[in-house]
Amino acid sequence: MDDSQHSIGGIVLGSDYSEGAHPAILEELIRTNAESSPGYGSDSYSARARDLIREACQCSQAAVYFFTSGTQINAVTLGALLSPWEGVLAADSAHIASHEAGAVELGGHKVICLPGHDGKLSPADAALYCEKYYADETRDHIVTPGAFYLSQPTEYGTLYSLAELRAFRELCRRYRMSLYIDGARLAYALACPENDVSLADLASLCDAFTIGGNKCGALFGEALVVPDPDRLPRFFSVMKQHGAVLSKGRLLGVQFCRLFTDGLYEEIGRTANETAARLSKALADKGYPPAVNTPTNQVFIRVDAETFRRLMEHHLGGFWSAEEDGSYTVRFVSSWAATRRNVEDVLAAL
Amino acid sequence: MDDSQHSIGGIVLGSDYSEGAHPAILEELIRTNAESSPGYGSDSYSARARDLIREACQCSQAAVYFFTSGTQINAVTLGALLSPWEGVLAADSAHIASHEAGAVELGGHKVICLPGHDGKLSPADAALYCEKYYADETRDHIVTPGAFYLSQPTEYGTLYSLAELRAFRELCRRYRMSLYIDGARLAYALACPENDVSLADLASLCDAFTIGGNKCGALFGEALVVPDPDRLPRFFSVMKQHGAVLSKGRLLGVQFCRLFTDGLYEEIGRTANETAARLSKALADKGYPPAVNTPTNQVFIRVDAETFRRLMEHHLGGFWSAEEDGSYTVRFVSSWAATRRNVEDVLAAL
Amino acid sequence: MDDSQHSIGGIVLGSDYSEGAHPAILEELIRTNAESSPGYGSDSYSARARDLIREACQCSQAAVYFFTSGTQINAVTLGALLSPWEGVLAADSAHIASHEAGAVELGGHKVICLPGHDGKLSPADAALYCEKYYADETRDHIVTPGAFYLSQPTEYGTLYSLAELRAFRELCRRYRMSLYIDGARLAYALACPENDVSLADLASLCDAFTIGGNKCGALFGEALVVPDPDRLPRFFSVMKQHGAVLSKGRLLGVQFCRLFTDGLYEEIGRTANETAARLSKALADKGYPPAVNTPTNQVFIRVDAETFRRLMEHHLGGFWSAEEDGSYTVRFVSSWAATRRNVEDVLAAL
Amino acid sequence: MDDSQHSIGGIVLGSDYSEGAHPAILEELIRTNAESSPGYGSDSYSARARDLIREACQCSQAAVYFFTSGTQINAVTLGALLSPWEGVLAADSAHIASHEAGAVELGGHKVICLPGHDGKLSPADAALYCEKYYADETRDHIVTPGAFYLSQPTEYGTLYSLAELRAFRELCRRYRMSLYIDGARLAYALACPENDVSLADLASLCDAFTIGGNKCGALFGEALVVPDPDRLPRFFSVMKQHGAVLSKGRLLGVQFCRLFTDGLYEEIGRTANETAARLSKALADKGYPPAVNTPTNQVFIRVDAETFRRLMEHHLGGFWSAEEDGSYTVRFVSSWAATRRNVEDVLAAL
Repeated sequence: MDDSQHSIGGIVLGSDYSEGAHPAILEELIRTNAESSPGYGSDSYSARARDLIREACQCSQAAVYFFTSGTQINAVTLGALLSPWEGVLAADSAHIASHEAGAVELGGHKVICLPGHDGKLSPADAALYCEKYYADETRDHIVTPGAFYLSQPTEYGTLYSLAELRAFRELCRRYRMSLYIDGARLAYALACPENDVSLADLASLCDAFTIGGNKCGALFGEALVVPDPDRLPRFFSVMKQHGAVLSKGRLLGVQFCRLFTDGLYEEIGRTANETAARLSKALADKGYPPAVNTPTNQVFIRVDAETFRRLMEHHLGGFWSAEEDGSYTVRFVSSWAATRRNVEDVLAAL
Repeated sequence: MDDSQHSIGGIVLGSDYSEGAHPAILEELIRTNAESSPGYGSDSYSARARDLIREACQCSQAAVYFFTSGTQINAVTLGALLSPWEGVLAADSAHIASHEAGAVELGGHKVICLPGHDGKLSPADAALYCEKYYADETRDHIVTPGAFYLSQPTEYGTLYSLAELRAFRELCRRYRMSLYIDGARLAYALACPENDVSLADLASLCDAFTIGGNKCGALFGEALVVPDPDRLPRFFSVMKQHGAVLSKGRLLGVQFCRLFTDGLYEEIGRTANETAARLSKALADKGYPPAVNTPTNQVFIRVDAETFRRLMEHHLGGFWSAEEDGSYTVRFVSSWAATRRNVEDVLAAL
Repeated sequence: MDDSQHSIGGIVLGSDYSEGAHPAILEELIRTNAESSPGYGSDSYSARARDLIREACQCSQAAVYFFTSGTQINAVTLGALLSPWEGVLAADSAHIASHEAGAVELGGHKVICLPGHDGKLSPADAALYCEKYYADETRDHIVTPGAFYLSQPTEYGTLYSLAELRAFRELCRRYRMSLYIDGARLAYALACPENDVSLADLASLCDAFTIGGNKCGALFGEALVVPDPDRLPRFFSVMKQHGAVLSKGRLLGVQFCRLFTDGLYEEIGRTANETAARLSKALADKGYPPAVNTPTNQVFIRVDAETFRRLMEHHLGGFWSAEEDGSYTVRFVSSWAATRRNVEDVLAAL
Repeated sequence: MDDSQHSIGGIVLGSDYSEGAHPAILEELIRTNAESSPGYGSDSYSARARDLIREACQCSQAAVYFFTSGTQINAVTLGALLSPWEGVLAADSAHIASHEAGAVELGGHKVICLPGHDGKLSPADAALYCEKYYADETRDHIVTPGAFYLSQPTEYGTLYSLAELRAFRELCRRYRMSLYIDGARLAYALACPENDVSLADLASLCDAFTIGGNKCGALFGEALVVPDPDRLPRFFSVMKQHGAVLSKGRLLGVQFCRLFTDGLYEEIGRTANETAARLSKALADKGYPPAVNTPTNQVFIRVDAETFRRLMEHHLGGFWSAEEDGSYTVRFVSSWAATRRNVEDVLAAL
């Protein structure tokens, strides 16, 4: 039987999408439930959510679109940004390269992987790749690098600095490429003191970027910001063609209205980051220093095989990778719903 | 600017997805909101929803999958049922042929249209097409008919009889084709006294069929029933590759659990059908006989140009088609949320 | 076993690709066989062939590409001309709609069929379709008409007039569409006294058109003319990606050099047209008037079932269609290789 | 202007597709030119060529198909062997990974690269990859390894041993994968004394493999051998859909008939291998030892920048790669058409 058919219980600090919606979001969905509105995102909540996001990005002309899933938003948008002969450059740990079941390739595009550094693609590596490509006389037989896929924060919870993103923008200018940033966990980056990249920076540097809701307190939903709408013409039809338009589009509008009112989006990020920092410090005190230096809502530690099995048995955190020396890297993910008790449970088991 | 970016108000009896969720569904989402569960449909609510649907279909071995959108469920499933060299036969009014922006073709498959009869594909027309195809010596140069796409009820609110579906099943057997039924509005068919096709019949006749939630009282979501799971191997991965897996999959599980408890799904259908029947009778009494003889939740009438403009101005019902004689066909769609007042508003405007 | 694996004998006047190459073409391939040249069309013969074609089209800036197969050139080029959300409008008898196994749909695009008139799409029908599309408020959910596919001559051997092609060009201007003409049998159109459309006209009206070699005396090969090269950027890479670049590209260059020297291309067309005209007249004299009024190298007649069987038994001409009254339409196709004897054989059998 | 539009002269030992056809092949094309035969490979020459290839492979039930281009045969066949959720494992130097412009990805499949060893994928590396994949609990979110792509000889002219191919076969059995071998230069492997893999071995080990003509003396063309025809159902239609069927299919039949008569295919390989061995020895004597230990028709040496420029200026051999120390790897490719004089020219320039 297919793997999707089994059923298992919840995991402590296993992910940031284990619960439903942040209470404030849920409240809005309840409040507006009986209202009647036109479909496919042409309602007033969606219009207002787009306005609020434009305002937060200081980009009044941006187009904003809403999706339900992260794999969908990545594949549809990259497919629209890329020309048919182009591929997308990404770190080998990029979500599109590893855990989206080949969605980008299904759309006809190669994911060109370069070795990542704690989840980050280095502008220097990227520059070298492009330079070599354009120096190769047989390049017309080779997939053209057409876009950069970055995630902020990365799959390892690390952050790109503004200087790094500017370096990618410069590469885009030089080689006519697009910059796409996957912000599935963007709330945690924006709320992070170490972060120097604002929504306005993203809007001024990217061809498109996402503002995640699924992992950041929404019931469900992701937003796509396209600072220059001409970059993605007829994008509603493109989304529809991919089955990515929700008939009851206002559900996404209602949620993003709330996320971008009274600073809720960043507040959700801040709460989770603080929990993660507390956990990280306590783990280090117990002899488990962070395996990756990450300032956001994910904490990675290395444990021996026996400890690993104990954590898994008690449904505490998740498997990340098996190391050559027989040890394991385990990941804990915090969210708005993480509790002091969750942290204590983890510590107690170690 | 893209058409998706504008915003307009709600329409009376314009569609069955204008409001949020049926109160009983919303209640369940609220009740379970704080619970923690594993992702991607591996939670216990999704497991139970699959069980309830299997039970309702009297098909204990069926695989059940949940999607968020109807275009998505049609395109992904047909893509998986069809071999690369096959196309799908459908009535020319079929939703996949007209209003899904070419999603099936995006997946590489031709939609082969035959003239519909009040929205229905006729088994006789279908048989003739297949017979001719297999008599053609150049058929290896021609797209092979690989599946039938039917909708129950159809886009015109009409119903296939059990005898008709059996005729299609027989064609499938003879020509090695698949039978796929789009049940986006299935609740209205199931609740209809004229209907003689049960969920168990669908499970015994179809290779795959859908049970719509978006247009039948759910907040969002569609279920896919695959009576013989081997027909769609590795389907979780196929869905993931299409961006069709919701990380917080339990949201779909919770909703379908409720829809298939205490007969809610059919109750939603019944209420709406009754409102539609009331409206239809009142319209006929006022001199507007039904343009299509439909027993479900949609009512079609023909009006002159001036009446059409008046209805549109007052946001009553929706444009369906412009006729050659200058008149218009207008559609009214009922739902669980339709009120006596809605019906009165329409009648008052005529 | 697959249908492609059986083997049968040759057919008299069955097609215009039954023999090898016109002797003058073969001679050139022999003469140049031992020469060494760079690959993938970067040789001097291909360069010269492109120049000769540009000259014949009076279009010095055109890009010219060479392919091996007609289905390939249609699918790759239409795929490149169309945006992802667009489909191509064609007559229902169009080769892409009927006998290319769904190659255009494989590339993700819908073929939107309108009823043809002796194989021709009517500008009036096309205009009406586009007008209705843009008047439809739900058009963002519907495949956008993005190009016209015409064949010159058509699959029925009929011709578009210059006035008709100008009408299509005007529709393209009005609705931002592309005009693509499949010239698989273009030699027969160009050589036809009734024809008023020159290569220069095609170059001034089309976004892309093909000059067929396979059915017009070449050993193999088709040429694509793109009057404005910017319409198909990076097209070499696009072709490569579709496996449509011949490593020994000079073979195509050598052949098209010869076809466009000393008027060979039109001479091949003229010879075949004359044979067809002779056959057509003789058939009419014998009581078999043309079923379609065609001035090029194809002749269609209607015969009763017994005559049909006799023709097929003697391998004379090919099945075209079975008619409702039990009769058959048979097609005879002339070429440079058709002989007086071939014509006599057909007449003798009737 | 597109890169494909320029024109340059021939290169000495630059490739094995610089000339036309081996004289014996050309002779057959001339001899059969005037014959009339049915199209699309249903002629008697194609039938006989299929028989000859089956015989050479000692595999009487095999299906054999003919294509015109190598990129085409790889992409269409891999696309047909793989399920939608599968990717193909290959060495990073594999032709499909580097120089086919993303043709496999265009078909929706990921090329999963592992580091190659002189162009070869190691069975041990492949086994480790598969083992890890199936041990990963999130594997349903990851592209499934569905086939191995090997080339014999490889892009570096090296050979897989029978033992290695058996190891891959065993992995295929264990993980339900397909084994595909690209034999674009197979003649050179078959003719090589160091080679212990026969055509019969390939037929017994592979799900599909190709017998190259373009680089092995044919005017053009590649053959595909499918030992178990059921592995690729309806493959003629699949080819047609990809524009990969030549209307004048007999051209391919005629050529492969000749290649598999009187041992011509291996003779072509032997001649070229001997020339390459002579060149390699002479280069080593002059202080240029082989950069890769290859027994087939390609010779790789490393030269300093000045020598590299001199070779390129005199059109001798081709650029392969630029090394970190400023030197260059140059490749010389021998063929049936390579002459003693060619070898002398290279030696004289060093």
